[in-house]
Amino acid sequence: MGYTVAVVGATGAVGTRMIKMLEESTLPIDKVRLLSSARSAGKVLQYKEQDIEVELTTEDSFEGVDIALFSAGGSVSAKFAPYAVKSGAVVVDNTSHFRQNPDVPLVVPEVNAHALEAHNGIIACPNCSTIQMMVALEPVRQKWGLERIIVSTYQAVSGAGQSAINETERELRDVLNDGVNPRDVKADILPSGGDKKHYPIAFNALPQIDVFTDNDYTYEEMKMTNETKKIMEDDSIAVSATCVRIPVLSAHSESVYIETKEVAPIEEVKAAIAAFPGAVLEDDVANQVYPQAVNAVGSRDTFVGRIRKDLDAEKGIHMWIVSDNLLKGAAWNSVQIAETLHERGLVRPTADLKFELK
Amino acid sequence: MGYTVAVVGATGAVGTRMIKMLEESTLPIDKVRLLSSARSAGKVLQYKEQDIEVELTTEDSFEGVDIALFSAGGSVSAKFAPYAVKSGAVVVDNTSHFRQNPDVPLVVPEVNAHALEAHNGIIACPNCSTIQMMVALEPVRQKWGLERIIVSTYQAVSGAGQSAINETERELRDVLNDGVNPRDVKADILPSGGDKKHYPIAFNALPQIDVFTDNDYTYEEMKMTNETKKIMEDDSIAVSATCVRIPVLSAHSESVYIETKEVAPIEEVKAAIAAFPGAVLEDDVANQVYPQAVNAVGSRDTFVGRIRKDLDAEKGIHMWIVSDNLLKGAAWNSVQIAETLHERGLVRPTADLKFELK
Repeated sequence: MGYTVAVVGATGAVGTRMIKMLEESTLPIDKVRLLSSARSAGKVLQYKEQDIEVELTTEDSFEGVDIALFSAGGSVSAKFAPYAVKSGAVVVDNTSHFRQNPDVPLVVPEVNAHALEAHNGIIACPNCSTIQMMVALEPVRQKWGLERIIVSTYQAVSGAGQSAINETERELRDVLNDGVNPRDVKADILPSGGDKKHYPIAFNALPQIDVFTDNDYTYEEMKMTNETKKIMEDDSIAVSATCVRIPVLSAHSESVYIETKEVAPIEEVKAAIAAFPGAVLEDDVANQVYPQAVNAVGSRDTFVGRIRKDLDAEKGIHMWIVSDNLLKGAAWNSVQIAETLHERGLVRPTADLKFELK
Repeated sequence: MGYTVAVVGATGAVGTRMIKMLEESTLPIDKVRLLSSARSAGKVLQYKEQDIEVELTTEDSFEGVDIALFSAGGSVSAKFAPYAVKSGAVVVDNTSHFRQNPDVPLVVPEVNAHALEAHNGIIACPNCSTIQMMVALEPVRQKWGLERIIVSTYQAVSGAGQSAINETERELRDVLNDGVNPRDVKADILPSGGDKKHYPIAFNALPQIDVFTDNDYTYEEMKMTNETKKIMEDDSIAVSATCVRIPVLSAHSESVYIETKEVAPIEEVKAAIAAFPGAVLEDDVANQVYPQAVNAVGSRDTFVGRIRKDLDAEKGIHMWIVSDNLLKGAAWNSVQIAETLHERGLVRPTADLKFELK
C-alpha cells in the first residue's frame, strides 16, 4: 500500500539527511532504496534501523520506484532522472539541472505548492540559499508586494558537500594546532570544486560560490535571481545577490534588503512572518534575540530576525534569515515536496515523457 | 628635533600595531612613551629594539608629549584626551568617543585630510568598518556622486580586542579537538563585551556588533551611517548597514551596494578605484581574483573587487571591500593622520581648550 522511495546520492551530505527526513516523514513508505555512483555502491546505510546496501545507479534502477529523490550532482540527474520518469517514478531533483526547464515546477511547498499540479514527472528543489529567502519573503510579498531584493549571503561549507566540511576542519586544525599561517593553508576544493583555483576558507570569507558567469555574477548568485522570479511567478522582481562562503559548517545566514510595493509597517511584517508556515520569528534585540547559524542546525524551520526599516527608503526593510542548508535548503524541502505530492494525489506515472533519454 | 609620541592602550591588539606602524613611520620621532591602565603598567614592550616600560596613564602623563595616539576604550579617551591637549599634545583618538563632536575632525587621510586644518587638539580616527568603505567609495563619489549605500559586513573578531581573538581560538579548539557541539560552546565576550548575553562565534555568524540603539540598529551600524556622512561631508548620502561578526581573526570584508548620482561605467569605476591612494583593485573574476581576508592581513591597503552592475538599477553597483581592521581600520589610519598633521605643520599645542577636563 505504501511507496517505494529511492534516494540517489544516498551517501552524500544531503543524501544521508534525506534518509533521516524519510525516517521521520508522514509519507507511507514500504521500501527505501539507496543508490549512488560506483565509488560508494556496496556501502551499507541504515534506514529505521534496517541495514540497506547502496546500489549502483543505472538506467534500470528505477523499476518499481514511486518517488526518486536525486542529490548526486547535475550530471547524474541529467542522465538518470528521465529514466526514472520513464520507469513510472516521480522525481524530486535537488540539483540545478532542471530548475529553469519550463516543464519542471520549482517548488518551495509553503510558497508555490500549486505548481506541483502541472508536473511532468520531475519537480526541482531550489537552491539552498533561495529556499530560505523565499520562506521569509513570501508572507511579505503576499501582503505588500515585492519590488526588489538585495541579498548578501553567509553560506556554510556543507553546501559544497562532505569533502568541503572535511577540508574546512582540516584547515582550521592546520592553523590552530600546527601554527600554519591562514594564507598558506592548502586548499583543494573550495571555493568551487569545479573551478581551477582553490583558496583557504579557514579564517577567511570567499566571495565566490560556484563558477562565474559572463555577467561577472556567479552561478550561485544567478540562481538566487532566476529561481526567485520562477518561484514567485513574477519576472519583475529585481534580485541581485552577493554569495559568500564563510567558515561555518552548516546553516546559511543571509542579510536581505527588500523594497516592497506598498509601505509595510514593521510590526505587521513581523506578525506576517511569524504566522507563515515554516518561518520562525526570532526578533527581540532588546534581549539580544536574533537568528544564529549554530542554533538553526538540525531544524526544518527558517529563522528570521533583525527586521527593521531602512534608515532612508520608505519602503525599504532589512532582515537576517538563517536556516539549515542541508535540511530546509535541500533534504527536508525535497521530502516535503514528496509529502505534498502525496497529499495532493500527484504521485503517479507520467505517460508523456518530456525529458530526453541520453 | 623630533617628536615625543605617546601610545595610550599600548598593550592591546591595536596598541601593539600602533607601535609597529610608528617603527615604520616617516614621522621624525625622538621618543616613544607607552601608556596603559594599571593592569598592564610595568610590562616591557619593544620599540625599534629598545625596551620601553609601559607607564600608568594619569592626568600628568602627557607633559612633553607632542602626539598622543589613544586606543584604550572610549572612557579612557573621554577622561585623558583633554588633559593631553591641555599639556600641549595633539591627540589622535581611535575610539568612538569624540567622533561626532563638531569640534573634532573625523579623518581618513586619503578622503578628507583638509579637515585636519581646523583641528582643536583632538582628531578622531573613524570606525574600522567605515574607513575601508570610505577608501573604496571616495573615488566613485568624486566622479559620479553617491546617492545611497547598503552594506553588509563580515567582520573579524580582532575588532573586539585580543580577548576576543583568544576566545575564538579557544572555542574552535573546543569543537575541533574536544567535540563540543558549536551551540554549546562557552562564550564570555562576543558579540559585545559590554552587553548582557554572550554567544559562540565558532562556526557561527553573529548579526550584532556593539550594543543595540533605540532604532533597532546596533551602534556599529549607526557608526557606519553617521561617520560616512561626516567624512564625506554630505548628510544626504543614505547609508544603512548590517554589521555581522564571523569567525575570522583579522581583516574585515564588506558586501557593498551603492547607487551613484550619475551613471558610472563599470570599467571607469574600476580605473578610478585603482588610481585612488590606499586602494588596490583586485578584480579579475575570469581568473578568480578578488579580495580575501587572509591575504589582506598585514597590509595597509584596502582591496576592492567583485565590482559589477546591479542587474536592474541603472545606477546600482555592487562590490567587495577587504582591509586589515587593525591596520587601515585602526593603527595605520591613526599613524597616517599623525604623518599628515606633520606634513601640514599641524602638530602644535592648542591654546583654546574646547574639551572638558573631568
